Amino acid sequence: MPLITLLSDFGHKDPYVGIMKGVILGLCPEARLVDLTHEVAPQDVAEGAFQLAASCRWFPEHTVHLAVVDPGVGGSRRPLVARGRRFSYVGPDNGLLSLAWEQDEPVAVHQIENFTLQTPSRTFHGRDVFAPVAAALARGVELREIGPPVTDSMRLVQETEPQILHIDGFGNLVTSVRREPGRELESVAVGWRTAPVKETFSQVGPGELVAYWGSLGFLEIAMNGGNAAENMGVERGTQVRLSDRR
Amino acid sequence: MPLITLLSDFGHKDPYVGIMKGVILGLCPEARLVDLTHEVAPQDVAEGAFQLAASCRWFPEHTVHLAVVDPGVGGSRRPLVARGRRFSYVGPDNGLLSLAWEQDEPVAVHQIENFTLQTPSRTFHGRDVFAPVAAALARGVELREIGPPVTDSMRLVQETEPQILHIDGFGNLVTSVRREPGRELESVAVGWRTAPVKETFSQVGPGELVAYWGSLGFLEIAMNGGNAAENMGVERGTQVRLSDRR
Amino acid sequence: MPLITLLSDFGHKDPYVGIMKGVILGLCPEARLVDLTHEVAPQDVAEGAFQLAASCRWFPEHTVHLAVVDPGVGGSRRPLVARGRRFSYVGPDNGLLSLAWEQDEPVAVHQIENFTLQTPSRTFHGRDVFAPVAAALARGVELREIGPPVTDSMRLVQETEPQILHIDGFGNLVTSVRREPGRELESVAVGWRTAPVKETFSQVGPGELVAYWGSLGFLEIAMNGGNAAENMGVERGTQVRLSDRR
Repeated sequence: MPLITLLSDFGHKDPYVGIMKGVILGLCPEARLVDLTHEVAPQDVAEGAFQLAASCRWFPEHTVHLAVVDPGVGGSRRPLVARGRRFSYVGPDNGLLSLAWEQDEPVAVHQIENFTLQTPSRTFHGRDVFAPVAAALARGVELREIGPPVTDSMRLVQETEPQILHIDGFGNLVTSVRREPGRELESVAVGWRTAPVKETFSQVGPGELVAYWGSLGFLEIAMNGGNAAENMGVERGTQVRLSDRR
Repeated sequence: MPLITLLSDFGHKDPYVGIMKGVILGLCPEARLVDLTHEVAPQDVAEGAFQLAASCRWFPEHTVHLAVVDPGVGGSRRPLVARGRRFSYVGPDNGLLSLAWEQDEPVAVHQIENFTLQTPSRTFHGRDVFAPVAAALARGVELREIGPPVTDSMRLVQETEPQILHIDGFGNLVTSVRREPGRELESVAVGWRTAPVKETFSQVGPGELVAYWGSLGFLEIAMNGGNAAENMGVERGTQVRLSDRR
Repeated sequence: MPLITLLSDFGHKDPYVGIMKGVILGLCPEARLVDLTHEVAPQDVAEGAFQLAASCRWFPEHTVHLAVVDPGVGGSRRPLVARGRRFSYVGPDNGLLSLAWEQDEPVAVHQIENFTLQTPSRTFHGRDVFAPVAAALARGVELREIGPPVTDSMRLVQETEPQILHIDGFGNLVTSVRREPGRELESVAVGWRTAPVKETFSQVGPGELVAYWGSLGFLEIAMNGGNAAENMGVERGTQVRLSDRR
């Protein structure tokens, strides 16, 4: 029972995601389909890459991860399939797949030339290129049958300064800070506000800021019972400052 | 493995769509369910009809398309099942199914009398009438078992003046203009703004307007890297003017 | 083919719901998954409990209902599994499951100790505790294998004064008033506005208020062709006054 996940910036107002699923199920009727999110900010490749990397590892081995955030559709950017140790990936060559693929031990990446719908449109490769190729992967087609290998696929540069990577739907701030063995943090500051590092957000009073090692593996900042992002007026890319425990 | 799609104006805040799926899976446990969209504007039959017609043909043959945008529920409007060459359709007799059914070569349309839940409510035919009948169709029940044939089902009148049919979630404008063999367009104007007709939107500079033959089969107007609808202040029904290439 | 429903306040912007589905399908690949809603207002346990109770009974017997609205995650609140006559339930011990479970003839409720992911996080029990236990229930594991029985699980107090329980996505007002045999209502008043009780909303003119016995089993107030909640400026908890037919 092959499993395919879908991530995009298509939103829920239009039937674009449903159309992709129709194409997949026409070619691989036994595929199981799971939505990761379709509310990536329009054309925001970095946010899509973060969301994909944060969620893909919770799926069983051999899952095919299909992602479409594709401002360059119809231009010269290549369509790709990639294979890691555990998963396969399908999407545009703009870095969208790169964070997920890199954390999964890269095995190969190929350019898509075969298995697309005939005469693909210039504007909806999700339907015409990526959906049929995801169905082919789910049916067991090999990367070399899909197209030639590529060695220069685009990779997103990881941020080096500690900063806010992502704001989730609760208004929690996911920072770029990962746990380092032997390092214990006392607090994290954003602008003039400081949050103590605790184990979970119910360890501070209602309305207070708190930082903790979040479920995605990064340091997060939240307001107990509130919306930290709205309250603090921060956005993605805002820098954070760390204080070590002495 | 029968396939059923769902389209409605129920939104995602309430469990109405989930309830319909529960009813379907109780009656046809092996059905595969795919959402087209549930964010049709409340009670906007024309928008629902457009979305259904634009998406249903990407599904495999024998798919059952279930659609509920139903301002007349509980009144005298009839519930219908329709069969085209490739698909079956279930929904209210208010034109919602008509655009999709007409492009699929109409075979028959019947009024629903059987296979509903006992004593249907007056307010939620999606659950009590359309969901159980979609499950029956998925199990192979024939139209004549569901109810008597109908010859006067409601049809939406297609617009004759070129105009904006739909604004998608990216702010792209889908016009009512279909490709005509032998006619080549130079540009399309909306109010005092003009967009050149190109093959795809990356052929103009960032922030510029462009028109192209969209993935749904209609002429679309977009802003490269932007939101055309917000920028131009247009809405559905706004007329457009075409200039032919000489 | 076991069936699992999912309800939460996770929204659609983040991949939290997709991650839960990945965990479930890794442990029980044949499970069918249906979303009830993920747009419960953040941390609003009472709204989640209402939505779950209103929708769960439309599913086939043996369905597992998984619900996560969990402001106390990481603190001392217990994780629970409950069994009723028809369904099983998984979620936090904060009353979220109680309305649904009570209307389903309670059989047993146990605290979750086994079948969780190893070393659960303090912030995402949906993924680490409730999803794997829902998968275990779907595979036929018994409650006593999951953990010891509990006799003091939290229950929500039902409102006694007639009031607005819920506002749906169309702006219809769902009141706490249930039908009583032998009692016939003439009208219902909210503030200075009065709605006559009819069989369905198309029995009043466009823009007029109407009350009717809604599809969820409660008295509802709607505006024919309009949004009652916006028009009347009411909110959840606003009291309503009933007039009997004489």
